[in-house]
Amino acid sequence: MTQPCIAVVGPGENATQEAIDDALLVGRRIAERGWVMICGGRATGVMAAAARGAKAAGGLSIGILPGADRSGASEDLTLSLPTALGEARNAVIVTAADAVVACGMNPGTASEVSLALRAGKPTVLVRPAPDTAAFFAKLGLVYVTTSADDAIDSIAPRLR
Amino acid sequence: MTQPCIAVVGPGENATQEAIDDALLVGRRIAERGWVMICGGRATGVMAAAARGAKAAGGLSIGILPGADRSGASEDLTLSLPTALGEARNAVIVTAADAVVACGMNPGTASEVSLALRAGKPTVLVRPAPDTAAFFAKLGLVYVTTSADDAIDSIAPRLR
Amino acid sequence: MTQPCIAVVGPGENATQEAIDDALLVGRRIAERGWVMICGGRATGVMAAAARGAKAAGGLSIGILPGADRSGASEDLTLSLPTALGEARNAVIVTAADAVVACGMNPGTASEVSLALRAGKPTVLVRPAPDTAAFFAKLGLVYVTTSADDAIDSIAPRLR
Amino acid sequence: MTQPCIAVVGPGENATQEAIDDALLVGRRIAERGWVMICGGRATGVMAAAARGAKAAGGLSIGILPGADRSGASEDLTLSLPTALGEARNAVIVTAADAVVACGMNPGTASEVSLALRAGKPTVLVRPAPDTAAFFAKLGLVYVTTSADDAIDSIAPRLR
Repeated sequence: MTQPCIAVVGPGENATQEAIDDALLVGRRIAERGWVMICGGRATGVMAAAARGAKAAGGLSIGILPGADRSGASEDLTLSLPTALGEARNAVIVTAADAVVACGMNPGTASEVSLALRAGKPTVLVRPAPDTAAFFAKLGLVYVTTSADDAIDSIAPRLR
Repeated sequence: MTQPCIAVVGPGENATQEAIDDALLVGRRIAERGWVMICGGRATGVMAAAARGAKAAGGLSIGILPGADRSGASEDLTLSLPTALGEARNAVIVTAADAVVACGMNPGTASEVSLALRAGKPTVLVRPAPDTAAFFAKLGLVYVTTSADDAIDSIAPRLR
Repeated sequence: MTQPCIAVVGPGENATQEAIDDALLVGRRIAERGWVMICGGRATGVMAAAARGAKAAGGLSIGILPGADRSGASEDLTLSLPTALGEARNAVIVTAADAVVACGMNPGTASEVSLALRAGKPTVLVRPAPDTAAFFAKLGLVYVTTSADDAIDSIAPRLR
Repeated sequence: MTQPCIAVVGPGENATQEAIDDALLVGRRIAERGWVMICGGRATGVMAAAARGAKAAGGLSIGILPGADRSGASEDLTLSLPTALGEARNAVIVTAADAVVACGMNPGTASEVSLALRAGKPTVLVRPAPDTAAFFAKLGLVYVTTSADDAIDSIAPRLR
């Protein structure tokens, strides 16, 4: 059995400081559990922070990149995998993950959270806006939390 | 120049009657304009209704299927294209379309609307729940309407 | 039931005149049978010739483009569908097709012929080099022909 | 910079013993160099052997699976990533890799070798049949070797 893979998703260039701080801690906690962190792989925003957090805790992290090469990938990842799939790589991130944690929100992130709910995977929104939480709660079972620790704790019992 | 392609997205098995009625009319109006209707291709819910509407008006319609063969495809489509891409086919539907009209909402539909906003494509929500409209309005420019005719009218000036 | 879709694959910029002539005739014959021609969609080489042939016979033709928009698409297609999938779109072309006809050969074409054999779809090589024919004959059942008419005749009985 | 990723491709269920032995050694040598081994991920044939070899040398190995979950994945991989992309996952394997080594040949393998040549990536055929070598040599620059050590040596200077 390979270790559980947890996707950390969220905005890149326009991530808020709060989302970045949360992603850093979520990445760290994933690594501390011995899980693998996967993300969109770019060297910006939530992706970069989650990679930095996983690295700080000595964990394995994989970036699934939209482009055909590694340009723009975070240096903190254990490994970056270019896909050349464009936005269809969002579906690959979710399919490859056992659970999805969203820090912040934008259209790309919304597509990933939606696909996670569609696939029935454990899905956590960290510090969502109230109407974001309300919207996704109608689409499926989402965990809503204000803490990275709670995010990880809510996932753990649901991993096979 | 090929004709504009308009994606009609929405729930399959669990579509409401309202969403089905809207999709039927949207499909018809797309065809009446000489545009091409594209959808997820399955013989159920919003996809099936949009295909039926496009056919009734003598228009061209294409279904982009998630599976590896045509099983389960709507018979009303001009053409169904299996992709074997699973949920990544949602990204292909949006990429192939010049505009996206959503009738009803579920996780798959939410992923398509999200990707349409991400790509900056004209995006219409027909009769959305208030919190659905509120959520997507924060992600990007969405048209919200209660009529198929208005949906089409809102798209027309934005097609190149 | 939607009509059979036949993929015509082959080189773009570096297509030989022979491959282009063959593709033009294959595209025409596909349309004359009432089938749909699908191809890689770009306005060059075998793709462009097959689209021109299909159009000359009044048939339906669909281009499955690798990029995120329609730039570079053949104007002779009924419809061009951008996918943003890069080379993974080759797999979509083959999956969407009921049979594959190759005119000429290059690495992209070889990937499509290989995937068609993998999927067990009727596969025709028009005027292949002897070692090309020998290679693919060891991978699966390929029809080898020197005429567009024979190519079409060999496919017809194997379409469901 | 993440480590170089080398894809090891070849038949699954119908792999020859020779291809399996070669893949085992190639996987081992990749790991001994500190590179990452990536493959199709299933617990059979060349994929399984390459994973076993990488594990024996303590290396990192990633399987890119065609299905939507980890069923059928090799237990020897560091990590298996389901994609739900079907055969389009072959394109992802090649895109994610810095070089491709083929042990044995079948249609799926041929699609991967073809895509590697298309992308201009270092491509090695280990112990190919003469007409296989002849075919691919006309499509692009392939290294042909009868030894796993030579395969690795031929790749090393071409990795950035």
